[in-house]
Amino acid sequence: MASTMEKIVSLCKRRGFIFQSSEIYGGLKASYDYGPLGVELKKNIKETWWSDMVHCRNDIVGLDCSIVMHPDVWKASGHLAGFSDPLVDCKNCKERFRADQAPRTEAGTEVEFREGGKSSGSKLKGVVDKRGYVCPVCGCPDLSAERQFNLMFRTSIGPVDPLQEIADAAGELADLDMKGRMKKLHEIVARSAVYLRPETAQGMFVNFKNILDSSRVKPPFGIAQVGKSYRNEITTSNLTFRTCEFEQMEMEYFVKPGEDEQWYDYWRNTRLSWYVKLGLSQDKLRLRDHKQSELAHYAKACADIEYYFPFENQDGEGEWGELEGIANRTDYDLKKHSGFTGKDLSYFDPETKERYIPYVIEPAAGADRAALAFLCDAFDEEIVPTAKGGEEVRTVLRFHPKIAPVKVAVFPLVKRDGMPEKSQAIMDDLLSTGINCFYDHGGAIGRRYRRQDEAGTPYCLTVDSQTIEDDTVTIRDRDTMQQERIPMNGVVEIMKKRIGN
Amino acid sequence: MASTMEKIVSLCKRRGFIFQSSEIYGGLKASYDYGPLGVELKKNIKETWWSDMVHCRNDIVGLDCSIVMHPDVWKASGHLAGFSDPLVDCKNCKERFRADQAPRTEAGTEVEFREGGKSSGSKLKGVVDKRGYVCPVCGCPDLSAERQFNLMFRTSIGPVDPLQEIADAAGELADLDMKGRMKKLHEIVARSAVYLRPETAQGMFVNFKNILDSSRVKPPFGIAQVGKSYRNEITTSNLTFRTCEFEQMEMEYFVKPGEDEQWYDYWRNTRLSWYVKLGLSQDKLRLRDHKQSELAHYAKACADIEYYFPFENQDGEGEWGELEGIANRTDYDLKKHSGFTGKDLSYFDPETKERYIPYVIEPAAGADRAALAFLCDAFDEEIVPTAKGGEEVRTVLRFHPKIAPVKVAVFPLVKRDGMPEKSQAIMDDLLSTGINCFYDHGGAIGRRYRRQDEAGTPYCLTVDSQTIEDDTVTIRDRDTMQQERIPMNGVVEIMKKRIGN
Repeated sequence: MASTMEKIVSLCKRRGFIFQSSEIYGGLKASYDYGPLGVELKKNIKETWWSDMVHCRNDIVGLDCSIVMHPDVWKASGHLAGFSDPLVDCKNCKERFRADQAPRTEAGTEVEFREGGKSSGSKLKGVVDKRGYVCPVCGCPDLSAERQFNLMFRTSIGPVDPLQEIADAAGELADLDMKGRMKKLHEIVARSAVYLRPETAQGMFVNFKNILDSSRVKPPFGIAQVGKSYRNEITTSNLTFRTCEFEQMEMEYFVKPGEDEQWYDYWRNTRLSWYVKLGLSQDKLRLRDHKQSELAHYAKACADIEYYFPFENQDGEGEWGELEGIANRTDYDLKKHSGFTGKDLSYFDPETKERYIPYVIEPAAGADRAALAFLCDAFDEEIVPTAKGGEEVRTVLRFHPKIAPVKVAVFPLVKRDGMPEKSQAIMDDLLSTGINCFYDHGGAIGRRYRRQDEAGTPYCLTVDSQTIEDDTVTIRDRDTMQQERIPMNGVVEIMKKRIGN
Repeated sequence: MASTMEKIVSLCKRRGFIFQSSEIYGGLKASYDYGPLGVELKKNIKETWWSDMVHCRNDIVGLDCSIVMHPDVWKASGHLAGFSDPLVDCKNCKERFRADQAPRTEAGTEVEFREGGKSSGSKLKGVVDKRGYVCPVCGCPDLSAERQFNLMFRTSIGPVDPLQEIADAAGELADLDMKGRMKKLHEIVARSAVYLRPETAQGMFVNFKNILDSSRVKPPFGIAQVGKSYRNEITTSNLTFRTCEFEQMEMEYFVKPGEDEQWYDYWRNTRLSWYVKLGLSQDKLRLRDHKQSELAHYAKACADIEYYFPFENQDGEGEWGELEGIANRTDYDLKKHSGFTGKDLSYFDPETKERYIPYVIEPAAGADRAALAFLCDAFDEEIVPTAKGGEEVRTVLRFHPKIAPVKVAVFPLVKRDGMPEKSQAIMDDLLSTGINCFYDHGGAIGRRYRRQDEAGTPYCLTVDSQTIEDDTVTIRDRDTMQQERIPMNGVVEIMKKRIGN
């Protein structure tokens, strides 16, 4: 029997939520495209975030930075030097893996593995060295040295072709030892290297002074940004949960030092309630405080908002996965950029005559993870009676109306007797308001309801013979499957009220 | 005196529309960030486009693809081989430039230039070769061969470090000639190379079948996408007009062959009216049909929607610049992808029993260019009388309310007598609806109006002593500067009506 996650993945493809990227080309590892329903779901999540964070508040402004920034930004932020994973090669099966995620085995233990990592290979034995781990694929302890691997994607900007410059220097390179070659190659690419940002946050720090100068803000105030970030992750998994290209919804909240702890508490609670307000099951959400040992070097405190995803682990249980991190980043980032550029990134309070570098509280959410959590949480199967007296499974996505991709579907009961015309009139009213609606005249009405259940559409309107007589239509509720009659000319107002527009 | 464009650039920075990217690091060439007002402007444009193209129509669905796609997509589309500019180096001043944009000079002409391109250099003479152009910087005709330069940004995905592999192969490389070295280097990087998409359009073609299978669409129907694209442009200019990172609003409309010409006409007209509807001056807009010689190899017809930007040319006049291209791409792309993958990308019409590969009409707009055009078009200066009987220049951005970043500002006339409290009550009403509003209690009321004029805010509400007596406030119109009194408790409804929400 298919697992819940398998059913969700299959539904995502069947109904157009999420497709594998470049699927007709065999796909690109851990890369996904949002189909017609998925793009609306994710857009609704991002727009609700923006509305709640920026438009419904008086203390947060927006920002939209280019993804490619000046490379020195990443030197100052520490990403260029420190943003790297230790990678190791298995000398037996050639797997390349992250040392910090390899299975731990006590140093000195004798272990068995198969030659070449193949099940047909002859049995070999080896002893685990002092690093205390083995290859995650074949179990071999004979491993290369750990090697730093930068998680940022590097590319080259401008009219220079680094490959041409490398070709020019090939003679010189050949004369150097390995270390010298790598140094020289890094020098050559550095002349035109730029990076895809690994987080949107640095954009807010780098623009802090521009925004202070232009936007009449004063602490406590926030800068919010939604946009893509990139990390060359080695370990990707679980549909859109961990991918190399992902979209963030980040906000940096600048406060007076000393007031940081109270704002940290405020944002922990505010952000957790946001997910609950939009319908995520409260018993599948938790706030997990980081232990001191888990904290990033710049953070004074950090907590993750986690959701209990139906990713099966070995015991067939779900897994807690991070949706959002709330961190007290202190004045670390502004100080780093100030130090690197020599620019004053302090704030002067004209009322108290104090000058200080603000502390920063950062709620950083993943838009793709939020979309996945809302999908998983909305997914439901229930046994319902069929018209013929039997039973069937109804698959339904119980989205909050605010994030549901399609708000309402319109059906003529049959394709004649004036019903398509009446349906079209309703569609025209809905379309003119921009309420996302869908028209379907294909197949039995029960099947049409089921298709909308799988799309998570909260309401279906059906035009039937009574409509022709008295201009009323039935409105069917996705969750209760109850129907009632409403006047045709009241459809737009009723829909606006029910979907909270 | 500052030119109009200089004034716009300065306003953009001063009020927080557009900042140079990474400005505190000295900036990154032709790279910009949208500040608090700019992000709202661009968001409003993108959301209006999406609403008009997807939500207000029954025949277009949305899509959101990853920016990094399978590299073979670009082989099939022709971008990897053909998407390149001819670059040339000047042997005198070392400038690297695009051959197709260099100043034309008749072959065989003798020209003068300075040694090293320096004004102090000795005078030299040379003869223009048969290519018929000279260096755009120093005028020298002694130039390198033309060299293809791919406009796509390349990066590397996965656990492989191409520099490490190049270092490993340095000995082998040194033994090869230049051509052999480049071939080998390209082989090495190709193992992990991926590209940042140069257009969003290919995402729609690659997902065509997935969308047909999942979304109950049939021709004529469209797939719309908004997202960033990247081109390593050598010549960038005019603020956000031409940048390496830019955002597109593209729609691919799939039609039955034979119906393509009528749909091409339809989209030419529909898209032009869109800009007019949102307030762009009709006399600064034109539709320019491409000549046969200008057409891309895949296009049967193409027209540009152009706006007359205030970029000064040498004669001090403005310049027509492309906002959007409408192209009849025929069945070129679907056929290419079908040929490359072996997948059937035809459509079978169950009613007529016909099978065909649809033709595609593509309206492809630039979100950054649209934002820049709306900014330039909204910019106005007028002479107005001052309170003291003199005259002053009023700078105002006359945005259509739908795209104005801030819809309404709220001012207490003075910071006492209960006015801040009443103002806050109005703010709370507005904030709860998500209407983007701004509170300002700083400085003389006239200065506060002027600041909002420069932000393009259509309405200002002022709480004064009469408000305390009768709960009415003044509403001031940005364009006419006329004020009228309205009831405080009607503010939200009046604003919704006036900004067309």
